[in-house]
Amino acid sequence: MWRAVELSSRAQHTTPPNPDVGCVILDAHGEVAGEGWHERPGAPHAEIVALREAGHRASGGTAVVTLEPCSHEGRTGPCTTALIDAGVRRVVYAVTDPNPQATGGADVLRAHGIEVDGGLLASEAAAVNARWLTPFHTGRPFVVWKYAATLDGRSAAADGTSRWITGAGARAEVHRLRAAVDTIVVGSATVIADDPQLTVRHGGTPVPYAEQPLRVVVDSAARTPATARVCDDAAPTWIATAAEVGSTPDGRVDLHKLLATLYERGQRYLLLEGGPALAGAFWQARVVDRVVAYIAPALLGAGPTALAHAGIDTIDDAIRLDVREVTTVDGDVRITATPHPAPDSGVAGPQQPAVAAAADEEA
Amino acid sequence: MWRAVELSSRAQHTTPPNPDVGCVILDAHGEVAGEGWHERPGAPHAEIVALREAGHRASGGTAVVTLEPCSHEGRTGPCTTALIDAGVRRVVYAVTDPNPQATGGADVLRAHGIEVDGGLLASEAAAVNARWLTPFHTGRPFVVWKYAATLDGRSAAADGTSRWITGAGARAEVHRLRAAVDTIVVGSATVIADDPQLTVRHGGTPVPYAEQPLRVVVDSAARTPATARVCDDAAPTWIATAAEVGSTPDGRVDLHKLLATLYERGQRYLLLEGGPALAGAFWQARVVDRVVAYIAPALLGAGPTALAHAGIDTIDDAIRLDVREVTTVDGDVRITATPHPAPDSGVAGPQQPAVAAAADEEA
Ligand SMILES: NC(=O)c1ccc[n+]([C@@H]2O[C@H](COP(=O)([O-])OP(=O)(O)OC[C@H]3O[C@@H](n4cnc5c(N)ncnc54)[C@H](OP(=O)(O)O)[C@@H]3O)[C@@H](O)[C@H]2O)c1
Ligand SMILES: NC(=O)c1ccc[n+]([C@@H]2O[C@H](COP(=O)([O-])OP(=O)(O)OC[C@H]3O[C@@H](n4cnc5c(N)ncnc54)[C@H](OP(=O)(O)O)[C@@H]3O)[C@@H](O)[C@H]2O)c1
Repeated sequence: MWRAVELSSRAQHTTPPNPDVGCVILDAHGEVAGEGWHERPGAPHAEIVALREAGHRASGGTAVVTLEPCSHEGRTGPCTTALIDAGVRRVVYAVTDPNPQATGGADVLRAHGIEVDGGLLASEAAAVNARWLTPFHTGRPFVVWKYAATLDGRSAAADGTSRWITGAGARAEVHRLRAAVDTIVVGSATVIADDPQLTVRHGGTPVPYAEQPLRVVVDSAARTPATARVCDDAAPTWIATAAEVGSTPDGRVDLHKLLATLYERGQRYLLLEGGPALAGAFWQARVVDRVVAYIAPALLGAGPTALAHAGIDTIDDAIRLDVREVTTVDGDVRITATPHPAPDSGVAGPQQPAVAAAADEEA
Repeated sequence: MWRAVELSSRAQHTTPPNPDVGCVILDAHGEVAGEGWHERPGAPHAEIVALREAGHRASGGTAVVTLEPCSHEGRTGPCTTALIDAGVRRVVYAVTDPNPQATGGADVLRAHGIEVDGGLLASEAAAVNARWLTPFHTGRPFVVWKYAATLDGRSAAADGTSRWITGAGARAEVHRLRAAVDTIVVGSATVIADDPQLTVRHGGTPVPYAEQPLRVVVDSAARTPATARVCDDAAPTWIATAAEVGSTPDGRVDLHKLLATLYERGQRYLLLEGGPALAGAFWQARVVDRVVAYIAPALLGAGPTALAHAGIDTIDDAIRLDVREVTTVDGDVRITATPHPAPDSGVAGPQQPAVAAAADEEA
């Protein structure tokens, strides 16, 4: 199952809106006979890829898969049928499929005499697939907050200039990230200050309108000018006002209602691109599932910070995260982190102990 | 030489005040016969360690060493003598020894008929040994700025609380870093606000007085109270006032004069522990050689920032760094970076091209 979880993490930028799934087929002697992961919508499911590689060796063997095999007739036919036809004797899966259209796969397999066990490494598999699982359990899109800042946490210089904090590699990655989501959100102040277009472009060339994510401006009083680039015809746009969405006591857009509305409209994967005030409000509402920080190796010592107004006054109330990945991208540092404890993906996550205060190591 | 440079980087926390040196001995057939690096003061030099491992195979062979072999009678006898006695035919070194007491090793070797070449991978070897080389070329200690902050660049919460931003692992590492330096510097405001002791303690136990670095408080008008912990008898302390050191036009301690004075007193390796204003002044004076940032996976959205008053107003004037290492320490992220271009270590460094602005990847 470790191997299957590893396989499931292979295609995170291309699988949305589908789940990230990995599968290993063991033959009757317990030897690995096939491996697969789900690459992108329309491509065969992980089980099908692994069964094809295993061929006749799947007969009498075991399928180890990170998500309960689906039993619904999608673009690719139910995986349960393929597993039954291949003569698999046993199926071990990690996470139960919460998708009302696809669930029940385990029961179908059992009805055909296949031994089925669920729950193995469920929290590890769920962590990889959190982007897909979270909306089922929360009724809102999975929210990624992406920001760029200097090593000292500044998102712009004192005079407001910010081009370019990060390098070309990080900026190209942002377009790949945008291409994976179905919704991009910014605050009205960012639109007024920077006039970003917020489209997916690869090497400068925009992808077709139908493939562009929905652009959402969180704009309590509809301050976004009609001439803003975010309102052009390159991609769909929604100016989400307090009047339309619902408002907080201070007259701002109610973020819980905003996310519920987006979910109702079918949006499942959201990239929050700032600015600092809107990001602070998302954190205060506890509706961020992942942070992707691009840290440029530069120092400013002045200027706006990457995050503001998160409602935290004292260190004990700090939002604590778990670092998931640290890497360099073209000279910049990318840190991926998730809230600690993890937000609800429907499966209890592995708890890490909070770092104990070691009184003897103080300054 | 790549291997020798790699070996030279092995003991960076224990070699100070000695240089970081690595050595590989090749036998007469060009096969690796011995390897060594300088571990700590009093321990044999890299050449001696490698020659011992090579034994008689050194005869007729080549010594590849990151620093010109010394010719002076130190605690361990000149390395030139050992290389001559071992019958080495050729010596290839990276960086010329700038130490007036030890230089001239190449000439001594040549006088004994040994073929000597210098300069191979000089900038790479110098980068590893910059901590030792920089003071010779600048007449001031090598300056490391260490700080701890949240992912969003805060060094404390809005109410001033900051214990503990980083975990026990990062705090233990700071004590190892302090043990390697000979000088720890803080601003008067940090002493007044936090009353830190600034001693080296391992697992809570302080090292003996003689092994403690000098504590320096940069304190223009001698505001440090006599009761401050930094004034206790656990370690030597210098309250560096503007009157004693010399002052800037605005009456503050002149940092160039401060560093020159420390150099005259024999101090070579300095850890700057803040606060943000003093760090800003060090950056403005362009006297920081390395940054070690401990980034806690936490968000505050308010509170003082890690760096202030660096005199930068616009993005084009940002201090640009090169990331040297990124790693995690007990859940925190440690980023080590150096100014770009590198400060003067006496050898031209490898230039990295500035990241080109790709106009087509803008927001
Ligand atoms: N480095 C980066 O990664 C990055 C990314 C994006 C932006 N930025 C910078 O950030 C700056 C703008 O950021 P900002 O913090 O001033 O504004 P912002 O976060 O872009 O927008 C905040 C505005 O959103 C509106 N809003 C509506 N509902 C809200 C709610 N529930 N909570 C909070 N805000 C709500 C409010 O204006 P109304 O009341 O009018 O609705 C609020 O003033 C720009 O200068 C831009 O350059 C940097
Ligand atoms: N997270 C961390 O890594 C970390 C580390 C250390 C401190 N801190 C926090 O930082 C806060 C204090 O920092 P701070 O920025 O207020 O003060 P600071 O940097 O500790 O000290 C600044 C003071 O140093 C004196 N000084 C003397 N010569 C100077 C010069 N040439 N340039 C600049 N300053 C000079 C000035 O006071 P005089 O004019 O009186 O001399 C100045 O106000 C504390 O709250 C502490 O908790 C955090």
